[in-house]
Amino acid sequence: MPFPAPLRGVVPPVLTPLTPTGRVDTASVRRLTEHLIGAGVHGLFLLGSSGEAAYLTDTQRLTALETAVDSAAGRVPVLAGVIETTTARVLDRAADAARAGADALVATAPFYARTHPVEIADHFRRVREGAGLPLLAYDIPVAVHTRLPRDVVLGLAADGTLAGLKDSSGDEGALRRLLIELRRHAPDFSVLTGSELTVDCALLAGVDGVVPGLGNVDARGYVRLYTAARSGDWAAAKAEQDRLAALFALTEAGDPALMGPGSAALGGFKAAAHLLGLIDCAATAAPQVPLDATAVARVRDLLTEAGLL
Amino acid sequence: MPFPAPLRGVVPPVLTPLTPTGRVDTASVRRLTEHLIGAGVHGLFLLGSSGEAAYLTDTQRLTALETAVDSAAGRVPVLAGVIETTTARVLDRAADAARAGADALVATAPFYARTHPVEIADHFRRVREGAGLPLLAYDIPVAVHTRLPRDVVLGLAADGTLAGLKDSSGDEGALRRLLIELRRHAPDFSVLTGSELTVDCALLAGVDGVVPGLGNVDARGYVRLYTAARSGDWAAAKAEQDRLAALFALTEAGDPALMGPGSAALGGFKAAAHLLGLIDCAATAAPQVPLDATAVARVRDLLTEAGLL
Amino acid sequence: MPFPAPLRGVVPPVLTPLTPTGRVDTASVRRLTEHLIGAGVHGLFLLGSSGEAAYLTDTQRLTALETAVDSAAGRVPVLAGVIETTTARVLDRAADAARAGADALVATAPFYARTHPVEIADHFRRVREGAGLPLLAYDIPVAVHTRLPRDVVLGLAADGTLAGLKDSSGDEGALRRLLIELRRHAPDFSVLTGSELTVDCALLAGVDGVVPGLGNVDARGYVRLYTAARSGDWAAAKAEQDRLAALFALTEAGDPALMGPGSAALGGFKAAAHLLGLIDCAATAAPQVPLDATAVARVRDLLTEAGLL
Amino acid sequence: MPFPAPLRGVVPPVLTPLTPTGRVDTASVRRLTEHLIGAGVHGLFLLGSSGEAAYLTDTQRLTALETAVDSAAGRVPVLAGVIETTTARVLDRAADAARAGADALVATAPFYARTHPVEIADHFRRVREGAGLPLLAYDIPVAVHTRLPRDVVLGLAADGTLAGLKDSSGDEGALRRLLIELRRHAPDFSVLTGSELTVDCALLAGVDGVVPGLGNVDARGYVRLYTAARSGDWAAAKAEQDRLAALFALTEAGDPALMGPGSAALGGFKAAAHLLGLIDCAATAAPQVPLDATAVARVRDLLTEAGLL
Repeated sequence: MPFPAPLRGVVPPVLTPLTPTGRVDTASVRRLTEHLIGAGVHGLFLLGSSGEAAYLTDTQRLTALETAVDSAAGRVPVLAGVIETTTARVLDRAADAARAGADALVATAPFYARTHPVEIADHFRRVREGAGLPLLAYDIPVAVHTRLPRDVVLGLAADGTLAGLKDSSGDEGALRRLLIELRRHAPDFSVLTGSELTVDCALLAGVDGVVPGLGNVDARGYVRLYTAARSGDWAAAKAEQDRLAALFALTEAGDPALMGPGSAALGGFKAAAHLLGLIDCAATAAPQVPLDATAVARVRDLLTEAGLL
Repeated sequence: MPFPAPLRGVVPPVLTPLTPTGRVDTASVRRLTEHLIGAGVHGLFLLGSSGEAAYLTDTQRLTALETAVDSAAGRVPVLAGVIETTTARVLDRAADAARAGADALVATAPFYARTHPVEIADHFRRVREGAGLPLLAYDIPVAVHTRLPRDVVLGLAADGTLAGLKDSSGDEGALRRLLIELRRHAPDFSVLTGSELTVDCALLAGVDGVVPGLGNVDARGYVRLYTAARSGDWAAAKAEQDRLAALFALTEAGDPALMGPGSAALGGFKAAAHLLGLIDCAATAAPQVPLDATAVARVRDLLTEAGLL
Repeated sequence: MPFPAPLRGVVPPVLTPLTPTGRVDTASVRRLTEHLIGAGVHGLFLLGSSGEAAYLTDTQRLTALETAVDSAAGRVPVLAGVIETTTARVLDRAADAARAGADALVATAPFYARTHPVEIADHFRRVREGAGLPLLAYDIPVAVHTRLPRDVVLGLAADGTLAGLKDSSGDEGALRRLLIELRRHAPDFSVLTGSELTVDCALLAGVDGVVPGLGNVDARGYVRLYTAARSGDWAAAKAEQDRLAALFALTEAGDPALMGPGSAALGGFKAAAHLLGLIDCAATAAPQVPLDATAVARVRDLLTEAGLL
Repeated sequence: MPFPAPLRGVVPPVLTPLTPTGRVDTASVRRLTEHLIGAGVHGLFLLGSSGEAAYLTDTQRLTALETAVDSAAGRVPVLAGVIETTTARVLDRAADAARAGADALVATAPFYARTHPVEIADHFRRVREGAGLPLLAYDIPVAVHTRLPRDVVLGLAADGTLAGLKDSSGDEGALRRLLIELRRHAPDFSVLTGSELTVDCALLAGVDGVVPGLGNVDARGYVRLYTAARSGDWAAAKAEQDRLAALFALTEAGDPALMGPGSAALGGFKAAAHLLGLIDCAATAAPQVPLDATAVARVRDLLTEAGLL
């Protein structure tokens, strides 16, 4: 199917379930993606931060992506993260993703390397040209340690290099100004927020959709939130968002003295998905620290409070 | 009058008009504050970042504050920024503010010094106890270079140290989670956002009010936005916010190769207020770089586009 | 006496002793400064970070400075920190310092405010012109959160605005490149390093002197280190520096879970000075967290290991 | 040959010469490495930041490494960077490096992912165990955006996980304290500084060697500097370092308005190596911006001033 222009709706960044020995658990990939599609999501984003892309080998990435594409079977578009330091490496991953059947790519600006806005723009142009698939830019400064400049995004939207933006900058003020410009000049450009705690706000501001890590745990909640917002029922959207924001505390169940925020967040998502029966095993990739029993009990309590257990 | 609990509405961070020779222009302070009150604002915040507090001597601060208190004449509460590096210095400024008749104080965490959350909490407790006025915490990491930890804010709200928070963190996700906790445990606590580009969103999320620098330029717009949101007309609120967000481009009229973002923003606000006749002179305090004629012309165009000229 | 051009040698950033109730302990200021001069230091720097300038009121700053100037009695030059957010405020402190009899001023770039290199240069020019005393720039990004650009320093050295630089950037590579340029073009310009763990290296690289917080605790050690380096005995200089670097562990005696790095460092310096009988009371200014008995015992052990007790 | 314990001396981070069409130029790899060995270097570090590792595909990395190993022919040890985001991916690159014949590996802490010190330590332990080659940690916060905590390095030195550290933190004070601890407890541990502007200082402080990007351009200079320091002739070492520090200006020949600091530095190194006849083509990998003719002329002038042309 042609990639939607713009892509709209709820597009969860799909977890990559692992077996206890650290292999990609393809059966759980299928069960999780089937569950998400059944919940009404509008697309799947594989190999993003919530998919532990940075922790997976190229082979593991390919396995997860191929399985998800096969499971989706054309019912919703599948976006593939191509998380690599620079252009030539991204193109290698893009070739893998194209072979696996992804419908679109999601790439960050270069990281580890220190680049100039001119180089960032050139990077996206080379990736788009070399990869031959619709391309979304992924603005995630907590990982990449630079911001995508507004002028770069606007330029790459205007010339068709980018089909969209996944904004995980957390900078809603900058996003607002970007949206005002984009709505005037690039109506087909898709803006998806990764800020899963303020989706009602982002939809009010004019984004097309959302990529919520927490959507792995409560996809129906995000679909309800999206639907309420689209129908103009902002009170319902806000109530749903408040419930989901309270549930988000599961990303802090792990003890911050014992693990990093990544381990806590990914561990929380996976523990919840496991408790809900969506995946077989809550293991995260090394060297992440697993949640202990106290933390898992806290996740369980939060699922209960949210009405999911 | 007693300080509102919670304080709600539009509380502009009032510019400090200066004469061409750099003195506080008290006549313009009176004209500007009279204009704001006439536009329907719900309070005045003197000596914040938009008030160039960091650039003013203690004497200049006192002059601006006394004049505004006298001008407000009890019609709306006057909040006074007490921007100093640490506790004892804040208390000196708090004594000035009390003498000038301020209704409440707004203080940041310590800056220049490197502090621990325990020290930040102790700082606010000492300021509250020593100053004898309602106290709001000012979370502005772009200036202070630390964030106010959520637990610190919740603790100081619970024990009555803080009457409220002015959130200029730009971190709307963290704010959402804070609001959920505060609404459960501290209903009288006032949360004011300083993120003037996403006020509709913040009000949907549950903040009590807004402290918009741009409110010096279009106070009526922010009052309309606030009123629309309060009445549940989110489409109107969004439209008003979009108009104001486009107008915010006046903070970037100055050439970033020639001046810092502070000079550009403050210069833009003051140029606009001057063009609108609200202040006599657009000068900013040294060593800020003044806008040139090209930049002022750009400000004028934006005011025209926004329907203000 | 005329201010040395360049100023050379060991210039400790003098602690500000406080009484148990938080007043400046002038008797201890006299005892400490007398001790330092007796140990052979080449100048005194009052009201820097080690002097807790950010924590002291204007009155406390003035008291400490006046006492030190009186105690020094012209035997060594007294430099005064004028730590304030921006130009006009620095000039108020500079007037205090001039009245107190300081021989030179030490000012940072603006902080809290966000400034451009052009504004930073203008700031120093205005301070130099307005204050009428020799001026050193203080590069301390851990507090100010910007770096002094090399071109700004070179320009202000060339035109005589700055008499010197106190470099606490910790960026020895940048310092090396600066020194090469300064030695060619500004031979009278004084470069003092605040990096007290690498003084042998900095002297080898060509700095004129050092401003070591640890010099409050072991001034004779730093004077020996300086003398060895000046005589070309680098092995002796290195051995002295290694001993002092081991002693520097006293800045980490406090528990980082209970206090910030500033409390630990200042608390360590003051506990050591107290144990050595140089000051009457180890109290630091609020809201800093005091060292507990365990931490003080650790400081005592380190003093013993270093041969000071 | 067994890997030296500790590794000492000059170990340049070898450039990866490219053809005009972006392929690894193996003939130039051979010529450059032969030149470096002839100049007396004590090891070669392939696939570091100066080797543009972040810009090269896995295939290109392998080609460059195999060629260098073959060229070195056991005369000096060859260290291979294994620059990847996390553990499993590093192990894939480590397998490549082992197959290519590298003598040791150089790995950073995880990047893109956000990790806790416990996870960083576990990462290095897993890499060491899985790879079966001596392992050096690479502390380069400008790329990785975290620092290696001192306690982590000391623990991994004590238990034999790490054979050494390549310190590109630029934090010479922290390095000094680390060296004092290491010299007491881990005498075989190799500390190499990547701070090429302060090598005399670092050798005085006690490091074992240096990994200078500029060593690609003037290897003989760094060997002279190292030899002078080892013989205790610190004046000669300082003079050599000053000459090299002046030459380092070639990393800023590119216009910072047109390119990032990486493009300027790598472009400067490669332009110089090309002008010296060490490599056939100065091209850097996309999306880096090439130096223009003005910048290349500036590089040429600096080479002339340094006595290399």
